[in-house]
Order: sequence, then structure tokens, then C-alpha cells
Amino acid sequence: MAKEIERKFLLSTDTWRELATHKVEIRDGLLAFRDGRKIRVRFCDDKATLSVKGPKKGLTRDEFEYEIPASDGLALLEEHCDGAILKKTRYFIPHGGYVWTVDEFQGVHTGLVLAEIELPSEDAEFEKPTWLGREVSGKSQYRQSSLFKKHRQATK
Amino acid sequence: MAKEIERKFLLSTDTWRELATHKVEIRDGLLAFRDGRKIRVRFCDDKATLSVKGPKKGLTRDEFEYEIPASDGLALLEEHCDGAILKKTRYFIPHGGYVWTVDEFQGVHTGLVLAEIELPSEDAEFEKPTWLGREVSGKSQYRQSSLFKKHRQATK
Repeated sequence: MAKEIERKFLLSTDTWRELATHKVEIRDGLLAFRDGRKIRVRFCDDKATLSVKGPKKGLTRDEFEYEIPASDGLALLEEHCDGAILKKTRYFIPHGGYVWTVDEFQGVHTGLVLAEIELPSEDAEFEKPTWLGREVSGKSQYRQSSLFKKHRQATK
Repeated sequence: MAKEIERKFLLSTDTWRELATHKVEIRDGLLAFRDGRKIRVRFCDDKATLSVKGPKKGLTRDEFEYEIPASDGLALLEEHCDGAILKKTRYFIPHGGYVWTVDEFQGVHTGLVLAEIELPSEDAEFEKPTWLGREVSGKSQYRQSSLFKKHRQATK
């Protein structure tokens, strides 16, 4: 188990694009959600993982993640997520000793771009890149559970 | 992914006990449940697994099961199942070319004993041992989801 401590921001400019060192295509499927707990299947390019994330306490949540066979990942995604699938391109941008990720959503959420940083502790200091916009950590409409819900409503 | 095809029975006598070749202590925790899908953490003695089971179609359901570190299993069981934990002793009894399992429940469900057989196909034939009682395959009150619910109600 790992502890996930992350902060989430909107973007103020497009200049982050040229700073990305690489990117991956992500497909996230929501298997179930209960009391802030989320069970998710994810493809990062062709690598599949199954993860359980606990409810947030402040900025921190428990995270259990396991690599699973791609054939299992595909069956879980296509047959057991009831269409709750988010697609995004994730860009990696090193800055100030951390690696920022910038997620550019597709489908129903096209236009939504979110930057995230994973921190070693809730009070860890970090330098904000100039392309960073308003912080949205903890804002319910930017949580993945809300994005899944909006996606499900739009595709039903 | 495996296909799980099983039939479930009550017991008519206690004679199965002397036929068991071995047993394991099982603790099952329900992480989440959605539309017949179940995400479960299980300890079989000291071995932990995380599994996703799909909804039943007839007697068959998809089953995805992964071994996980015992420390993760313990954290999931104790902190992420909201008390929905079933304890049972599982006995293994070879009979007629199959291995039957008999589950003797503890706690809230003490007194409940269920025999199960996993079959290679829905129409596979099998010989019924003399200690077998009434079939309860598909009966909602004997589903694990119902047992979890009853356990939760009783312990709240």
C-alpha cells in the first residue's frame, strides 16, 4: 500500500506542452465506488492495473495498485465498468525536482486539462510553474468520481 | 480471468466431517458491490487475494483473482470493508472426481453450513454425496452479498 498525496490545478497557458518529456494514453474504468472508496481498472498504454483507492483524509488517501494481465484488464474495462470509462493523454513534465503530470481529457470531457503533483507529505513545499492556473484540489467537480458520473450521464 | 460455475447446497447430516482431507480458515471482506459485481479481499489462512466477480448469468460468473501482499490484504480488510467481514472454516472433501468444499460460518452466521461444487460447465453431471441436503444455488438469502448485509446489520 502507498499513500497518495496529490494537489490538482487548472492550467493558465499552453506553454507546458513543449516541456513534456513523454506521454502515455490512459483509459480508466470505474468498477465500483462506495463511501469515497474507488475500485478502478487502468490502462497506461498497454499495461493494465487494478487499484483500490481509499477515501480522502485531507489531501491523503490509501492506494493499492496491482499490475494484472492485459487480457483481464480489457475484459474488466469492456464488460464490467458499465461504460464508465475516461480517456486521457497524460504528459510528464519535470519541474523543480518533481514530475508534474498534465492530463488532457477526451470524449465528453474534451477541453478539460488538469495538472497534478504527487507530494511526499501534505506540507511539502513545491515550486509552481508559470503555466499553472487555479488550484482545484478537493473541488468535487474535478474529482474522478464526478467525471465518471458526468460521462455516464452523457453517454446514456 | 476464469469462469466460475458453482452449485450450492445445504447439508443433511454431519458425516462429511470425517471425510475432509484438509481445511483453511477464510476471512472475506467486501470492498464494494455494484449491480451484481463484487470486489472482495480474502484471506485463506495467511494468503491474501483481491478479486472481482461479475454478475451471475445462470450459474456462471466472471472471476478475476489476484494474490496480493498480506500486509495490503490486512489493511484492506481492516480499514476498507466497513466491518463487512465474514469468517468461515472451509473443508475440502474429494467425492466422485470433484473436490467439494464445505463452509462452516462463524460469528453472526454461526450454524450456517454450505457445500459447494465448482463445475467445468453448467450442464456437467456430478454425483451427490449422501450428506448433501437441499440445493440453494441462486437462492438470494445464501448469496455472499446477503450474508455480508446481514452481518453488517447485526454488528452495527
